[in-house]
Amino acid sequence: MPRRSDSRSRMIYAAAELFRERGYHATAFSDVIQASGAPRGSTYFHFPGGKQQLACEAVALAGDEIEQMVATAAASCGDPGSLVRALGDMVAARLEGSGYRSGCAIATMVLELAPQSEELSSQFENVFGRWRQALVRRFEIWGITPGRATDLAELVMSVFEGALVVSRAARRIDSFRTATEALAEFIGHEPRLPAGSSRAARTGRAGS
Amino acid sequence: MPRRSDSRSRMIYAAAELFRERGYHATAFSDVIQASGAPRGSTYFHFPGGKQQLACEAVALAGDEIEQMVATAAASCGDPGSLVRALGDMVAARLEGSGYRSGCAIATMVLELAPQSEELSSQFENVFGRWRQALVRRFEIWGITPGRATDLAELVMSVFEGALVVSRAARRIDSFRTATEALAEFIGHEPRLPAGSSRAARTGRAGS
Repeated sequence: MPRRSDSRSRMIYAAAELFRERGYHATAFSDVIQASGAPRGSTYFHFPGGKQQLACEAVALAGDEIEQMVATAAASCGDPGSLVRALGDMVAARLEGSGYRSGCAIATMVLELAPQSEELSSQFENVFGRWRQALVRRFEIWGITPGRATDLAELVMSVFEGALVVSRAARRIDSFRTATEALAEFIGHEPRLPAGSSRAARTGRAGS
Repeated sequence: MPRRSDSRSRMIYAAAELFRERGYHATAFSDVIQASGAPRGSTYFHFPGGKQQLACEAVALAGDEIEQMVATAAASCGDPGSLVRALGDMVAARLEGSGYRSGCAIATMVLELAPQSEELSSQFENVFGRWRQALVRRFEIWGITPGRATDLAELVMSVFEGALVVSRAARRIDSFRTATEALAEFIGHEPRLPAGSSRAARTGRAGS
């Protein structure tokens, strides 16, 4: 018999996947119970705040996942353009593998619920903040100046989010691939400081 | 007393706005009736195919709207970078004016319903196809070669779609402005053929 914490954790993972595929409103607790195999009746014991609490925990999970994804992709890369391509490969594999059902972990909920739900909106913002920061840190290590690193991180997040929307509509990967490759090319030509000088650039943040 | 066709049209416009703000699942026919002021009981007379039919008509409206928006923005522009900025101004004004509730006309529905609904997915794809084509035509007129015009159109659509998601989550326009400005700068440096040679380039499509 699974421990209580196991069924709670399974419910969060199952909910995250359902929210990602069809959104918040079309996902009932009964769907989460079914997908997770958690015991019926455990719902309000594990999530006394109801579906909104479950959503908050699923969104926090998305923040962990995106930071992990950037770290994994960056481990095999040495510049911003190759990072965009590596992230593109990971996201495209997931999208194709899901039959175009599973895109960004939070975008569906963002469009359904922001800004109406104050609590969830803060959580969404936090996920994008963590993603932005993970990209900025890498870009700065690779010699992009701090202000510019933030601008490029914003552009990268937008391209990935938007390309997922367009490719889900088309049910083909082409749009996603074309957009992320055009982005990688542009970012690949971005001027970079010589290795080792990025810290000096970072201290110049006030001027950026 | 409004004519029958007026109430039908008002329902489509009201539904389009509700789908845009909160999505398909959270919008009931009763919400559309209330928002449009259409007479109760007219629902299945006007839309015998139910909510899905209403959604299809709202999505088609989005295709008209985006073509019109590109045409309006392009009328005051002479190059791809300024078109991106002009479109950015129009979209940002709408997003801010709505209190971050009203982003892309179809993105919420795309993420809720594609690819599960075959009929709606085709309609979504058609809207993005019309948007892509409107951009490609302008880019080609301004001297971008055909294959490249398609790549850039794909990138532009992705940036706009994604920046709307990120800015709705943040409930601030900054992310949208930063991403679209970075895009405008990149596209502004795109090599272009001299004026008048774009037709020759177009006939070279096989090589693109």
